[in-house]
Amino acid sequence: MPTPPTRSHGRLAISANAQPRELMSDTPRLKGAWCARVVTLFPEVFPGVLGASLTGKALQQGLWALDPIDLRVFGTGKHRQVDDTPAGGGAGLVMKPDVLGRALSMAANGTPDDPARWPRVYLSPRGKPFTQADARRFAAADGMTLLCGRFEGVDQRVIDAFALEEISLGDFVLTGGEIAAQAVIDATVRLIPGVLGNAASTEEESFSDGLLEHPQYTQPRSWQGRDIPDVLLSGNHGEIAKWRRAQSERLTEERRPDLWAAHLAAKGD
Amino acid sequence: MPTPPTRSHGRLAISANAQPRELMSDTPRLKGAWCARVVTLFPEVFPGVLGASLTGKALQQGLWALDPIDLRVFGTGKHRQVDDTPAGGGAGLVMKPDVLGRALSMAANGTPDDPARWPRVYLSPRGKPFTQADARRFAAADGMTLLCGRFEGVDQRVIDAFALEEISLGDFVLTGGEIAAQAVIDATVRLIPGVLGNAASTEEESFSDGLLEHPQYTQPRSWQGRDIPDVLLSGNHGEIAKWRRAQSERLTEERRPDLWAAHLAAKGD
Repeated sequence: MPTPPTRSHGRLAISANAQPRELMSDTPRLKGAWCARVVTLFPEVFPGVLGASLTGKALQQGLWALDPIDLRVFGTGKHRQVDDTPAGGGAGLVMKPDVLGRALSMAANGTPDDPARWPRVYLSPRGKPFTQADARRFAAADGMTLLCGRFEGVDQRVIDAFALEEISLGDFVLTGGEIAAQAVIDATVRLIPGVLGNAASTEEESFSDGLLEHPQYTQPRSWQGRDIPDVLLSGNHGEIAKWRRAQSERLTEERRPDLWAAHLAAKGD
Repeated sequence: MPTPPTRSHGRLAISANAQPRELMSDTPRLKGAWCARVVTLFPEVFPGVLGASLTGKALQQGLWALDPIDLRVFGTGKHRQVDDTPAGGGAGLVMKPDVLGRALSMAANGTPDDPARWPRVYLSPRGKPFTQADARRFAAADGMTLLCGRFEGVDQRVIDAFALEEISLGDFVLTGGEIAAQAVIDATVRLIPGVLGNAASTEEESFSDGLLEHPQYTQPRSWQGRDIPDVLLSGNHGEIAKWRRAQSERLTEERRPDLWAAHLAAKGD
């Protein structure tokens, strides 16, 4: 982490110890609870999906906290400009380093410098693909800051100055980083103790063995002429485990040659 | 597509030609506009991020439409149960085939059977990774249905009966499919003509050449002792293009050995 700018923020009236606006201030905040600070032009789309279901319940219980930080208020001029044309030419607009720098400096207030304790992430199609290992790493931190890009991306100097970790959701182009941020936060928050019930741990383990999950079935036994496979109703736990393993291997080989190759390599085949 | 069940839906009072509830009925709907039908236990989280920015503006203009379909109303019994324990044992709950079948049959009303014209997608960590090629394919269709899973997933017979295409956002575990559905819809809708300005096409092309995008810079020229690289201010378009290409290649080689290998293979190196 660089030293945040010590000069005046210009026309912005922000004191050195300003705290991010607590949009979620109607929820309790447990001391030391994991916190996501999200720098975005669209703070109103948070918590969004994260406010529903178990993540939403945990948010209301104060098991984690969410601070959207409105990038627009850091913009320059009476129109609060946040972007400008790319140096060297080209289509689109690039988010300005001075504007982003002010927002990220405020987001850094009171957070540890150590990126292991407080990862600072820029959601970008240029980043490394987000994986479950990242989610585990983020969940083990005190919290994290997520910068949501829009337009043609952000000025590279901001990425360098704040040592932002670039993370991509996948090989597709989103309108902005907000949905990606919600995916990262969801995958992370559900690993925080107390957020999910016991059921989740199994799913987690299932994913982390490097194979895709086997097909699932439930009641009714017969539906539209389709039956639950006999083996699953046999009560023979050994056979059930064998069948599920074979299905997992078949699906992984069919759909994910990359995971399958890694699995075979790990087995020493 | 299988034939939807022709028998009575039991205690549910749903006529054969029931249309999905139009939660977005305050927005116009242009005839033939691309439409996303989303089967979910959390219809209230839509449009979410999709309601902001350019995708939200296009939604309000009727350039595309969104029909969340509340899965809960298709549940069984007075508690409208939607899930049950996995056949063969194991942790968690599996979404029931009869419940999902009723919801997906309603979602199929008035849609073409041809999966090229109307893809039917189940968001699942078991699926093939979502790519920009999928987004282009979906955008070329009349619309699509997205099934959001929760818990340990859905009964395999539903996937088989409705020939659902399983798509994964990446190698991480989400609490449910809703964020993944929003990512797929966002990546798709922005490719629909008129949704974005001209700027987007460039970004799109940049991504589709198989390399990560080069760093971007904008004003001010100097920020916190960091300057825009001289070449970008040189006005020499040939040198700028060469520099950007070299940066793209460097970043791709460093961060995405998979893309880099594919790039080299395509070049015949």
